[in-house]
Amino acid sequence: MAITSPSYSVTLRVKLPNEPGKFALVAEAIGNAGGNLGAINLVSSARTHKVRDIVVFAANEDHEAAVVKAVEALTDIDVLQVSDRTTDAHIGGKLEIRSKHPLVNHDDLSMLYTPGVARICKRIYENPESARRLTIKGNSVAVVTDGTAVLGLGDIGPLAAMPVMEGKAILFKEFGNVDAYPICLDTKNVDEIVETVARLSPGFGGINLEDISAPRCFDVEERLAERLDIPVFHDDQHGTAIVLLAAITNALKIVKRDLSDLRIVIAGAGAAGTAIAELLLYAGATDIVVIGRNGILHPDDERNAHPKRLKLAEETNPRRIRGSLDDAMKGADVFIGVSAPNIVGEEAIASMRPDAMVFAMANPIPEVAPEIAERHARIVATGRSDYPNQINNVLCFPGLFRGLLDSGTKRVTNEMKLAAARAIAGILSDDELTDDCIVPSVFDKRVALAVASAVMAVP
Amino acid sequence: MAITSPSYSVTLRVKLPNEPGKFALVAEAIGNAGGNLGAINLVSSARTHKVRDIVVFAANEDHEAAVVKAVEALTDIDVLQVSDRTTDAHIGGKLEIRSKHPLVNHDDLSMLYTPGVARICKRIYENPESARRLTIKGNSVAVVTDGTAVLGLGDIGPLAAMPVMEGKAILFKEFGNVDAYPICLDTKNVDEIVETVARLSPGFGGINLEDISAPRCFDVEERLAERLDIPVFHDDQHGTAIVLLAAITNALKIVKRDLSDLRIVIAGAGAAGTAIAELLLYAGATDIVVIGRNGILHPDDERNAHPKRLKLAEETNPRRIRGSLDDAMKGADVFIGVSAPNIVGEEAIASMRPDAMVFAMANPIPEVAPEIAERHARIVATGRSDYPNQINNVLCFPGLFRGLLDSGTKRVTNEMKLAAARAIAGILSDDELTDDCIVPSVFDKRVALAVASAVMAVP
Repeated sequence: MAITSPSYSVTLRVKLPNEPGKFALVAEAIGNAGGNLGAINLVSSARTHKVRDIVVFAANEDHEAAVVKAVEALTDIDVLQVSDRTTDAHIGGKLEIRSKHPLVNHDDLSMLYTPGVARICKRIYENPESARRLTIKGNSVAVVTDGTAVLGLGDIGPLAAMPVMEGKAILFKEFGNVDAYPICLDTKNVDEIVETVARLSPGFGGINLEDISAPRCFDVEERLAERLDIPVFHDDQHGTAIVLLAAITNALKIVKRDLSDLRIVIAGAGAAGTAIAELLLYAGATDIVVIGRNGILHPDDERNAHPKRLKLAEETNPRRIRGSLDDAMKGADVFIGVSAPNIVGEEAIASMRPDAMVFAMANPIPEVAPEIAERHARIVATGRSDYPNQINNVLCFPGLFRGLLDSGTKRVTNEMKLAAARAIAGILSDDELTDDCIVPSVFDKRVALAVASAVMAVP
Repeated sequence: MAITSPSYSVTLRVKLPNEPGKFALVAEAIGNAGGNLGAINLVSSARTHKVRDIVVFAANEDHEAAVVKAVEALTDIDVLQVSDRTTDAHIGGKLEIRSKHPLVNHDDLSMLYTPGVARICKRIYENPESARRLTIKGNSVAVVTDGTAVLGLGDIGPLAAMPVMEGKAILFKEFGNVDAYPICLDTKNVDEIVETVARLSPGFGGINLEDISAPRCFDVEERLAERLDIPVFHDDQHGTAIVLLAAITNALKIVKRDLSDLRIVIAGAGAAGTAIAELLLYAGATDIVVIGRNGILHPDDERNAHPKRLKLAEETNPRRIRGSLDDAMKGADVFIGVSAPNIVGEEAIASMRPDAMVFAMANPIPEVAPEIAERHARIVATGRSDYPNQINNVLCFPGLFRGLLDSGTKRVTNEMKLAAARAIAGILSDDELTDDCIVPSVFDKRVALAVASAVMAVP
């Protein structure tokens, strides 16, 4: 039976006779159709009828429709309304902008707007640094995308990327109390992206780049970081790398090994794969083999067109091996997947060394199903919330930017990334740490604070 | 004595002996120093001492300091803390971004973010129009400036303009329930402004241009309106023109005259002056004389460098007169000032026709003091909140954009501007209408709704 999920859930408003056993019929019909019951609320109750809102988790949109049909087929029972809960949550957008102060009389207006506001403008004109204290610059982040690499959907453009960027913005607020606003750019040109972000940057305290495809993302980030006096951070690269490093750090505590002794395979040489390799090297890894579309990265490969790719090939693959992913997996300790669904077979996992660690982070379908990986690997992690050990960037970016904003840092350094990873890993005490719990929950409120403090403590 | 204002107000935290008559000493000292008492709150009370927070309105920063000094000079009385209330209201910025939905468990995350959000992205990719319903695009406005013409401060740059743009954003929310975000651009180049705004426009439902100096503002607005499929509105131009037209419409009801019969003088040929002239002509005015820096605008003047200026000169001054502001004022019915402080003398006002109407909107100091204008004019209006008849753009932009967003209109037309002006004017019933009350209060909640409805009703 297909796996049901809250992202495909419907609310059915159902009118049923006020008689014993009637709800059971509804529940049975939903169950027989493979729908999983969620919350059930009583909307109204009269002598002859009850009206209930019934949440049903389904596997996909067709399945949603099949569940509704099954209930509609029941005699005596009316489906009054059907609404898709994910759609409902998006109607009107997910975020709003509000005043921190009431605006009810002329005094308020005189202080928050004209004429009083002119005094604040003058002060900032005379001392630009005061903008961090007297405007939202001190707490604001632009979540910038060109919509070229959105989730697993690829190049869907700036408009269709909006729901993800809004989602990111609400996570920023919820977990880091950072005011983030989505900026979706109608250009894919690197020069234009850099120019546009630079021009709109004065009012922001930081730039979070998001879902920009590689290798353009490297140039965009590097040039903006060079040019702006506020931190620039490409979350798909470094956020992923930081949370992964946190997970590996904790996994190593369990297997009692050192990063420097491990053979590490990274499948995927894009934004995330590149950043992961760089951060692991910085953290002390010595033997990383990266697999791109043409197999194992090798510095002699003429297809390393982008300088970033060539640098990555030069800094990894110390044994200068050649071949495929399967070749690289033989005798490896760690597999890190940031690539595509189901590209790793069971034999490849079986060919790893004892106490193997598998981080299969392709979303929503991992490089290898956790059920298969578990047969041979000691630690298995994915990007999914419905399996243990979820590697989720939300463990990093809210706290990281909280720290960056509060310290007024101008650049994100490798040292800060390392500190953030250690802070995330350090949330779990030795008692809490198990094969199935190597990273804290995304809802653990301690995480963002710990990351912020760690980032601020970097000199 | 100088006029005190809430924009120069301080909160003094004062510790005073818990004895009769002690507070009177403080109040007397403040009064003698010219400070005006506002709210007085008891912070704590012990046997020997009381602590109070005392709000004092002053005239300027030096006056604030003088008031504090006067209290500090009192024996037995300690000033524990002094804080400027306008500064306090700006610390940390004035707006915040919030999620509309709680984010407390994995189900929430699955619907508001990954994986559920991907379904919404796909839907928008397949049907871009749905972005208005499923993202904040349907309710969001970018408040865009380059910081070149901020209030009366001039070209103070994008960073120092932030407090004004934030103020605008909170007014948008408070009065129109529009989610507006400040975008302060680090460029003054028209091409670059246009390109930048066009590129960042996908996520927004409208563009409110603000405080961009003339004549560049004309080109920026025209080119963006031409290029984008969302409404573009330069508030300094059209917002001012609309509210002024509303005020004139009501003034004409009082003096029982027609717009087409009036001689109108406009001092100021910048953004606001130009838009006012255009809208008044569209509304039926026939005799407008505009005064720029070089005197009365005349089509034969070779100094009309910008095409917009030349067009204005051609469409106004039907009697083709030449000369100064004083020349234009003789026999005029209406004076409209959007220029500079104190440029109109009492004789000029006295030289107007009976039932003269004076709209002296230079801020914070009008073209002629209302006390002087009143001696000769029937109707006197300013941009200030401390005189009757305040011409304030907040009467227009929140409701206008509310209407534009809700109707999905792509362009702001003259018909809409006229409809907005009539809606503002129409709020006041014939009973409410007096020489001192020709526009509704900015806090009148009926205004934005009426403007929105009127704009939406335009075919």
